[in-house]
Amino acid sequence: MGGSQIPPLPSREGLGEGDKKGNSYSIKLFHEVLRYCSAALLQFMKGLFGDRRTAAPSYRRTVFMQFEILKSDKNSSARLGKCHTAHGVFHTPAFMAVGTQGTVKALTPEDLREMGAEIILSNTYHLYLRPGHERIRRLGGLHRFMHWDYPLLTDSGGFQVFSLNSLVKISEEGVQFQSHLDGSRHEITPEKTVEIQEALGADIIMCLDDCTPYPASHEEAERSLEFTLNWSQRCKGSHHRGDQALFGIVQGGMYPDLRNRSVEALREMGFDGYAIGGLSVGESKEKMVEVVSQTVPLLPPDQPRYLMGVGTPFDIVQAVQQGVDMFDCVLPTRNARNGMLFTRAGRLVIKNARYADDEGPIDPGCFCYTCRNYSRAYLRHLYLAEEILAMRLNTIHNLRFYLTFMGEIRQAMAEDRLKEWVKTCYDQGASEEDNDPGQLDPWRASSPKKPAGKRNPAPVRTAPMK
Amino acid sequence: MGGSQIPPLPSREGLGEGDKKGNSYSIKLFHEVLRYCSAALLQFMKGLFGDRRTAAPSYRRTVFMQFEILKSDKNSSARLGKCHTAHGVFHTPAFMAVGTQGTVKALTPEDLREMGAEIILSNTYHLYLRPGHERIRRLGGLHRFMHWDYPLLTDSGGFQVFSLNSLVKISEEGVQFQSHLDGSRHEITPEKTVEIQEALGADIIMCLDDCTPYPASHEEAERSLEFTLNWSQRCKGSHHRGDQALFGIVQGGMYPDLRNRSVEALREMGFDGYAIGGLSVGESKEKMVEVVSQTVPLLPPDQPRYLMGVGTPFDIVQAVQQGVDMFDCVLPTRNARNGMLFTRAGRLVIKNARYADDEGPIDPGCFCYTCRNYSRAYLRHLYLAEEILAMRLNTIHNLRFYLTFMGEIRQAMAEDRLKEWVKTCYDQGASEEDNDPGQLDPWRASSPKKPAGKRNPAPVRTAPMK
Repeated sequence: MGGSQIPPLPSREGLGEGDKKGNSYSIKLFHEVLRYCSAALLQFMKGLFGDRRTAAPSYRRTVFMQFEILKSDKNSSARLGKCHTAHGVFHTPAFMAVGTQGTVKALTPEDLREMGAEIILSNTYHLYLRPGHERIRRLGGLHRFMHWDYPLLTDSGGFQVFSLNSLVKISEEGVQFQSHLDGSRHEITPEKTVEIQEALGADIIMCLDDCTPYPASHEEAERSLEFTLNWSQRCKGSHHRGDQALFGIVQGGMYPDLRNRSVEALREMGFDGYAIGGLSVGESKEKMVEVVSQTVPLLPPDQPRYLMGVGTPFDIVQAVQQGVDMFDCVLPTRNARNGMLFTRAGRLVIKNARYADDEGPIDPGCFCYTCRNYSRAYLRHLYLAEEILAMRLNTIHNLRFYLTFMGEIRQAMAEDRLKEWVKTCYDQGASEEDNDPGQLDPWRASSPKKPAGKRNPAPVRTAPMK
Repeated sequence: MGGSQIPPLPSREGLGEGDKKGNSYSIKLFHEVLRYCSAALLQFMKGLFGDRRTAAPSYRRTVFMQFEILKSDKNSSARLGKCHTAHGVFHTPAFMAVGTQGTVKALTPEDLREMGAEIILSNTYHLYLRPGHERIRRLGGLHRFMHWDYPLLTDSGGFQVFSLNSLVKISEEGVQFQSHLDGSRHEITPEKTVEIQEALGADIIMCLDDCTPYPASHEEAERSLEFTLNWSQRCKGSHHRGDQALFGIVQGGMYPDLRNRSVEALREMGFDGYAIGGLSVGESKEKMVEVVSQTVPLLPPDQPRYLMGVGTPFDIVQAVQQGVDMFDCVLPTRNARNGMLFTRAGRLVIKNARYADDEGPIDPGCFCYTCRNYSRAYLRHLYLAEEILAMRLNTIHNLRFYLTFMGEIRQAMAEDRLKEWVKTCYDQGASEEDNDPGQLDPWRASSPKKPAGKRNPAPVRTAPMK
């Protein structure tokens, strides 16, 4: 360890050329100087008293993120919260729209803010391959690059490596893969993902994890968990930016003992927040609920909990009641582009002939830009004509639906009527004609395409851990 | 003729269900009643005194459109004008963005208004095939359908029939073709295009014309012109809506005598404005300028003149000085989607590697939303990643460039300095590195794809007119 833990002396270049012109330059410079001084002081103290730490130098405790719990629900484990980051506040339970390649498809940041988005997510894997994290660092970081000056989370890239590549090799060292763009060979190690995510500069970054496939035997799940725990430790050890929160990811497949062990180990390492990974990968809804309900109570009560890649509004409201604070999912955005729209009454498939002369808005109760200004008939026309505007208007509606849904959950909690709200919500969600018959969750299509987390041929795992 | 000229008694249904909720319902109802009464009165008078008209019943004189010429340039034939329509005013010289399928690709009406668009164009051919003009009529007309409550022009559909279909048969009766969507057979006659355009309800509609191919012999051009003149007469005779202006289209190929004859015949019929068609179809720039400069002086001085499908900013500023008032072209929107951006200094091809780390805006002198908020590096990334947002941001920039260009022309005219402005404009337009060497017009690519007006295998013309 030693001197390598002191971050480099701040320079204009290191902060990104772009920031010279930006307003945040002086603030960032101040932070960097502060970080440098605290690291130097720590190093000096170590010299005097010796180093009793194995990882996580104490200056990481200056981390910017603060999580406040404003209220706990009396009938469930739900919490109403507020998360302060270096780029502002977001309220929990929160839904994060997915902006894979540095843009939430078809939307501008202004569109997102107008519909109430407070935090979004972007994918490390895609940005690492194109345009490259060093380029984004030079251009002043991802916030500046994509013109989003609000809270931002990046994933570790591990999940995308598994789901987008057929030739993946997982070893203790990290993950080797070929780019889906040009076939070039790459390796993402725990240290590498932290380096990339520090270059991107999101407010919350994630540890590299091995997303356990489904189904997996206990032995397979255990071996996969070993990788995750080893990698988490190394991520924590190599993370330096004090203005970023680092979240650990709980794995362990569908096995309670492994999930238990995962949480214990991660808590011992100490993270700024905890994610539940390895769900929404093809298991039944009941299984997911079971794992979440077993895992959440084990997590620290005062830190944010993030259920990755979940899900339908139905899934979300259930997980909220189990005490989850953060969610992300491609459902609202991807479905929008496929013409599947969310309404209070369930799914609406805009290409259906019944909407050809339908003058009404997608959802009479919705106040989004799309519903305020366009008829189902026009949206159907745009969709069938493959117009770009169809993507935008549909995405605006679906995302606004999700964000309004989250807002209503928070409002209900603030007014101590979450239980009643959830009941009303379930009662409403079954009347839309496009719903699949017999489907309990009105927002879930009965014949989904390839499940979101279904990975390509099982990656080769070498050198099983002890 | 007889009774068929009386429009049907207005009903809520005829006016479109949608208008019941809209503010404009009572205004439209009033117009419809007025139209009905004047038609009935005319019919009564015919009964008393006989019908001395062959076409164009006099109630068409209640047409809403008014064209004011505010100023004439002292050094050229340019005019500064203002055109009042049933949906508001647009200033001339005006550029109309093309909204083929009832949407300017990738933009909302709010985007268009923000960048200064006052009038846009939509294509009858596409809307007739999908979603169908009767459907749009039922839904309250095209303005309401597409949420654009400002001046709107529709073309006759003839040009698209020629350019999108390989099996076209032109006869005295009209144009027969197969849909590019499903191969179904259709015929557009002069009466049919008026019927469709009345259903769509644009403020300015166009006569059906036969766009003379290039090159064409004098005989071919003459025969084609005969079709156009016959059709123009029939369009005029079948047009009833008093809130729509009807424009005639001058044809005649590259032959001055035929252009002359075309103008004379159209003036005799009497239209609310005159378009110059059959240009930008593959002829040289010099030829185009020649034909425009010969044709414009023959047109009525107090009515708007519209040069169809033209062109680069260079083409436009030349035609403005020859006295043209209105333009439309797909260049700014189509080029935007192909990553070709307009700047004062010429063309900028955003995918070029030199922009990979370029922090600057597309055009430092531009104030569009895109230039205010995004770097060339980000726009290059979006374009290469095939993101939908790339289309939108590029289109916003290019269209804003065109509209600002038109605004500057008008401003220069208002301040009596058009000549100086044009000179500065030419001087600037040669410095961008992406410009084609040796190309006089900095905004024209030297190797265009298939010219805009190049038609498929020559349509079969039957029954040559006498």
